[in-house]
Amino acid sequence: MQAQVSRKTLAEGLGLLERIVPSRSSNPLLTSLKVEATPHGLTMSGTNLEIDMACFVAADVDTEAAFVVPAHLFSQIVRNLGGELVELSLQQSELNVKAGGSNFKLQTGELDAYPHLSFPSRAESKLDAKDFARSLSSVRYAASTEAFQAVFRGIKLEGRGTSARVVASDGFRLALRDFPSHGDTRNLILPARSADEIVRVLRDGDVGISYGEGVLGIITERVRMNVKLLDGEFPDYERVIPRDVKLRVILPAASLKEAVSRVAVLADKNANNRVEFLISEGKLQLAAEGDYGRAQDTLDVMQDGAEPAMSLGFNAKYVLDALGPIEGDAELLFSGPTSPAMFKGTDQGGYLAVVVPLRV
Amino acid sequence: MQAQVSRKTLAEGLGLLERIVPSRSSNPLLTSLKVEATPHGLTMSGTNLEIDMACFVAADVDTEAAFVVPAHLFSQIVRNLGGELVELSLQQSELNVKAGGSNFKLQTGELDAYPHLSFPSRAESKLDAKDFARSLSSVRYAASTEAFQAVFRGIKLEGRGTSARVVASDGFRLALRDFPSHGDTRNLILPARSADEIVRVLRDGDVGISYGEGVLGIITERVRMNVKLLDGEFPDYERVIPRDVKLRVILPAASLKEAVSRVAVLADKNANNRVEFLISEGKLQLAAEGDYGRAQDTLDVMQDGAEPAMSLGFNAKYVLDALGPIEGDAELLFSGPTSPAMFKGTDQGGYLAVVVPLRV
Repeated sequence: MQAQVSRKTLAEGLGLLERIVPSRSSNPLLTSLKVEATPHGLTMSGTNLEIDMACFVAADVDTEAAFVVPAHLFSQIVRNLGGELVELSLQQSELNVKAGGSNFKLQTGELDAYPHLSFPSRAESKLDAKDFARSLSSVRYAASTEAFQAVFRGIKLEGRGTSARVVASDGFRLALRDFPSHGDTRNLILPARSADEIVRVLRDGDVGISYGEGVLGIITERVRMNVKLLDGEFPDYERVIPRDVKLRVILPAASLKEAVSRVAVLADKNANNRVEFLISEGKLQLAAEGDYGRAQDTLDVMQDGAEPAMSLGFNAKYVLDALGPIEGDAELLFSGPTSPAMFKGTDQGGYLAVVVPLRV
Repeated sequence: MQAQVSRKTLAEGLGLLERIVPSRSSNPLLTSLKVEATPHGLTMSGTNLEIDMACFVAADVDTEAAFVVPAHLFSQIVRNLGGELVELSLQQSELNVKAGGSNFKLQTGELDAYPHLSFPSRAESKLDAKDFARSLSSVRYAASTEAFQAVFRGIKLEGRGTSARVVASDGFRLALRDFPSHGDTRNLILPARSADEIVRVLRDGDVGISYGEGVLGIITERVRMNVKLLDGEFPDYERVIPRDVKLRVILPAASLKEAVSRVAVLADKNANNRVEFLISEGKLQLAAEGDYGRAQDTLDVMQDGAEPAMSLGFNAKYVLDALGPIEGDAELLFSGPTSPAMFKGTDQGGYLAVVVPLRV
């Protein structure tokens, strides 16, 4: 087998796979890639046992062949090569990698022992890649990183007719984002860490979606993925979204982020980084107090609603996370000092964050 | 006391001190800064017991005062403030920090208990700040990070009449750089980590140098430092610099760095990342071999000297470190396969690296 391939394209493909494939494993074959050379190009595949990923790279190939190479070494070699074109050739058990004045002979692994990976072949529905990626990224922070109930470490994908929704919650806060969907989106729960890898492969245009036995299939021009889903029932999150808003505040999201970051410096790390919100007479006063002193910040806001004033305490980190995806003006909706508060953008971007206030 | 000071200038000064002052210490006062307010500005000082640093910041001050504040908190607060002007005022045991809509009340510490720090007042000689900083940065990599003889963790400063020299060595390699000096530079050994902090405060113009009891004084427009010196005898490094060059090679430093990085991917981590250099007939061939395969790279070079060919093995990391400060063309001077090799820039920048080849 001889193949000629653009160094840049090959390096990009390997870069995606390198993120999935572990660099160490008790089963060394799992640190390898399988490469299949067909007349039009190379299909490289790897797995972390949660995600199977295949990446296609156009190449001039003379004869079909398949081989297994160490993923990270191969990627590192290609990344460091000079010149624009890489020549690959297979000689017995060695992969020859040539470019410019460089020549690498890389030991290949046992092809027969490499695990069988399966990939989606046909999209059952489609989503806009950018919308899907942005939505996953917007809610990802609200998924738990700790290990109690697995579903709290996941992101729920939910079909809602002409739109789809992603939701994540760790029990203390919740984030969701709605986005348009063509066709039928099914309900399922993705591990949040796998969602990060999906976001990384999504670019422009549409992404094809398929539904297998306990897996979600992702199909883009270059990449196919099978992502293992989380079992279990996602909690009935709609219950915690307050219906009855008593006080509404609008102000630039950036100003609020800066002010919360500022006062949080003095907040008590052992008391949930508590920052007080006091809303009254068109002002939002933020205050924090800890061992080293007290901080106060006052912001002008647009204020309306049935209640003329309210005082609540929040974990500064949760507020900053909730504001993260909001650009332009933020809308803060309060239902009472102990009821969950809602954070939205005023631009109707489909994003909603719910944060439970701290107890007094 | 009331003081008005530019947020940016104050933040810059605190940024320098924050690097020195520890964020945790068994003696909490050491995590604090002492601030002295005089009619023209604020002198802030701190220490890590290796370096005492004082930083002057121009300010409008009404009455003289001195106080102690937590260094990292104060720096973080100032960094996050909005607006251009910061108002400081002292009210009993609290420092009031105001800017824009923000108001911080920071507990001050025990002024009397803060250790006495001393700073150089008069420069005994001068160095060009950029030359001095560049020279320290160029040789710093060759100092050891491990703890056998303290002098190997240091950088020697050496007076040589109209020039000065910095030298570092960990016993396996050596780096030195000569630079012009006005006046008398004395011989001393700086801890490499303190040298990093000196580099950070150096800007344009001249830097004043003073010599105290076991300390080097550094005086710039904004900053004064007393840096504790290392005791001990620096090894007679000139002995290892070969006099008798048998083969000389010239090639672009960047090409050599890239090629060494490339082949080093396959070098054996358990055999000192060994990369073979084979020079012959105007070519430098690099080769490496490890568990996963073999790598080879060939570069065109300008070659002269008594020996027509030579083969040597080097630790790839040492070669890359040695080439680090070289821009443009590199000159490689070989005295034999087991003798130390020299790496220089052809631009006469005063830099010289000596690397001992690996045994066969």
